[in-house]
Amino acid sequence: MTGESSPAGLWITLEGGDGSGKSTQAALLETWLAGRGRTVLRTREPGGSDVGVAIREIVLHHRGDIDPRAEALLYAADRAHHVATVVKPALARGEVVVQDRYLDSSVAYQGAGRVLDGTEIRNLSLWATGSALPDLTILLDLDEGAARGRLDTSRTRYDRLEAEKADFHARVRSAFLGLARAEPDRFLVVDASGEIDAIAEAIRARVETALDA
Amino acid sequence: MTGESSPAGLWITLEGGDGSGKSTQAALLETWLAGRGRTVLRTREPGGSDVGVAIREIVLHHRGDIDPRAEALLYAADRAHHVATVVKPALARGEVVVQDRYLDSSVAYQGAGRVLDGTEIRNLSLWATGSALPDLTILLDLDEGAARGRLDTSRTRYDRLEAEKADFHARVRSAFLGLARAEPDRFLVVDASGEIDAIAEAIRARVETALDA
Repeated sequence: MTGESSPAGLWITLEGGDGSGKSTQAALLETWLAGRGRTVLRTREPGGSDVGVAIREIVLHHRGDIDPRAEALLYAADRAHHVATVVKPALARGEVVVQDRYLDSSVAYQGAGRVLDGTEIRNLSLWATGSALPDLTILLDLDEGAARGRLDTSRTRYDRLEAEKADFHARVRSAFLGLARAEPDRFLVVDASGEIDAIAEAIRARVETALDA
Repeated sequence: MTGESSPAGLWITLEGGDGSGKSTQAALLETWLAGRGRTVLRTREPGGSDVGVAIREIVLHHRGDIDPRAEALLYAADRAHHVATVVKPALARGEVVVQDRYLDSSVAYQGAGRVLDGTEIRNLSLWATGSALPDLTILLDLDEGAARGRLDTSRTRYDRLEAEKADFHARVRSAFLGLARAEPDRFLVVDASGEIDAIAEAIRARVETALDA
């Protein structure tokens, strides 16, 4: 095995509202990457580490309101531990990290969707992680009506965030699209109302470019 | 009862290393304040709110290392929720809040004691709380040897922070004293190696001035 060198790590995040198909596309991407011989780490925020599982329980299932700044700080704490102990070590081993949600979700949900300033939320995440940003972010864009219809048929119970109003989700979608426009090199925006296979193919084409880079 | 107005709220925090007598002095202060007819809220950080109890469990009893920034963000999240939902409402009702630890502990333990910058830690706490600062902070100052001796006789098991090295505690003590020097109007520094009653008397004298102000 002498002379072989490990491939470089690649960090891919998937973003979009609930019901936009992130889990389905992450699974298809993982299968395709494994078929190319790459080791894939599937992970998520919040809850992608041991500490994060406890934090996720608080932010998603606490009974009663959480102060908005406390909520933003909990997401940032989850992020700090996850990036330091899970993501960065995997990238150093040459793996491909396929991650459900990252700081763009915090900015879209906490900042644009609620009462806090998006720039402050972004700066908090950047402080948490030492300014770590993914190589590629795939935004699965879906209008609120279609997303709600998918969730209604597949879930029997909504968690705290899913139970927020449709109006809130429309503001989140708009915030995601704004983030993608601001960083066109990092983002791939895909129309998530299309066929699953067509979406997967669009994602693979972009990932292939990133792998070859 | 017409014509009576509620007294103004007063926010007092107690700081110092473990074993410096904060709990003892908080209890004596509460009794004295109650004797003067004041309603007292005894509280603490971390863990002074419902969300905070869950966060305290993570930061003090998690098995394995927590990323330093994640730890700082967890303390800040606890603080944000505690100040917004417990401290500020009590002050608005005209109560005296007597609180075990606040942002000075974060700066001393996280900043000076560990790897992060104290100013960043302080700014994080100020962002978390909308820059809320106590009216009075009592620093119970005790050298490391005396503090350790007290803990050794009263505890059978140390938590994560208590188990850190003596060297660490010496740096924390020095950091606390530096914070007190920087804000002499907010801080009262008491030599915690003295008699309990003498310490309580020194605290009462300073609190009385604050109540009359």
